Amino acid sequence: MQVAVVTFDGFNELDSFIASALINRCRGDGLEALITTPTPVVTSMNGVEVTGQRPMEFVTEADVVLIGSGVKAREVVADEQLISELRLDSSRQLIGAQCSGALVLARLGFLDGMPACTDRKTRPFVEARGIPVLDEPFHAEGNIATAGGCLASQYLATWVITRTLGEDAARDVLDYVSPVGENQETIERALRAVHSAEGALA
Amino acid sequence: MQVAVVTFDGFNELDSFIASALINRCRGDGLEALITTPTPVVTSMNGVEVTGQRPMEFVTEADVVLIGSGVKAREVVADEQLISELRLDSSRQLIGAQCSGALVLARLGFLDGMPACTDRKTRPFVEARGIPVLDEPFHAEGNIATAGGCLASQYLATWVITRTLGEDAARDVLDYVSPVGENQETIERALRAVHSAEGALA
Repeated sequence: MQVAVVTFDGFNELDSFIASALINRCRGDGLEALITTPTPVVTSMNGVEVTGQRPMEFVTEADVVLIGSGVKAREVVADEQLISELRLDSSRQLIGAQCSGALVLARLGFLDGMPACTDRKTRPFVEARGIPVLDEPFHAEGNIATAGGCLASQYLATWVITRTLGEDAARDVLDYVSPVGENQETIERALRAVHSAEGALA
Repeated sequence: MQVAVVTFDGFNELDSFIASALINRCRGDGLEALITTPTPVVTSMNGVEVTGQRPMEFVTEADVVLIGSGVKAREVVADEQLISELRLDSSRQLIGAQCSGALVLARLGFLDGMPACTDRKTRPFVEARGIPVLDEPFHAEGNIATAGGCLASQYLATWVITRTLGEDAARDVLDYVSPVGENQETIERALRAVHSAEGALA
């Protein structure tokens, strides 16, 4: 299974790389994340140039699509060409967004009828599209998930791994990346965030 | 003030980018992190190509040097040319290492007489150099710090920001990057990790 981590120019390194690095710890189990970019090279909000691993067309064939965040999200949603390339299908794909990525999912209509999580700067722009924003780090309904606050990207990764490989695989990844000695609390915090979001639906 | 985030081929994205992205939230206050690489382009352990922002010579002029982690740390410490380029001075620089970066600091002699934090895979190699490894995520003595477990890189960044700009600046950064609704606990956890490491010295 392949995960497209959509990464635009001006991206926030935390949002693309925490999710992709956690997911890529499952490569041995057949789950792989790939940095997916609209141009061959994108430059982060802090000036770091990264070469994309896949072009935007990859989003149509990926099993999971995560929309990263960055300082140009409002330019992205105003870019008809770029938006037209994001042909996603929530009936067969898991679709998630980190922070300002929620604005892109809202623009694409995937948040109609559900609340979302996002960062405090993006919040008014998501609300302006009629989407209620939660004071929570993670929310999922069906195949759609959003996370708010850069470090909540670990919850988005936990959701993807749990939904594709199961909770034990997510526990193993979280155990490996945890600060030494904080393993159990790190695992429980992430699983609680993912479960409470899904429990809210029940 | 400038922070060299030393990033070798085979690097772990979490270790270089969590630290650099947190520190770069202080650019407006004059603290800046720059990805510093031995070659113009380095490739991560997951195949992501990143263009370095500074060459290795930058480590001699930076105010802070953080050694990132990766799957080739043992090759790095065996590379006399690369090691000779790491001319660091703990009397005027803050020096930190994330996970397998501790092996590089040990090779350079900066961990003589102090214990270190590192990840579980690197642990036996650090211990083989006579350095005791702690079951903790972060440890600092004077101008030298080590962190263990990928997500402990937020503690390394907290230490750098606290030591250069003060605790309030660190609180502001942690507040911004926290998972939404988990702000206070995220801030307290990071400050506790940094303070308890320094308190252990007193």
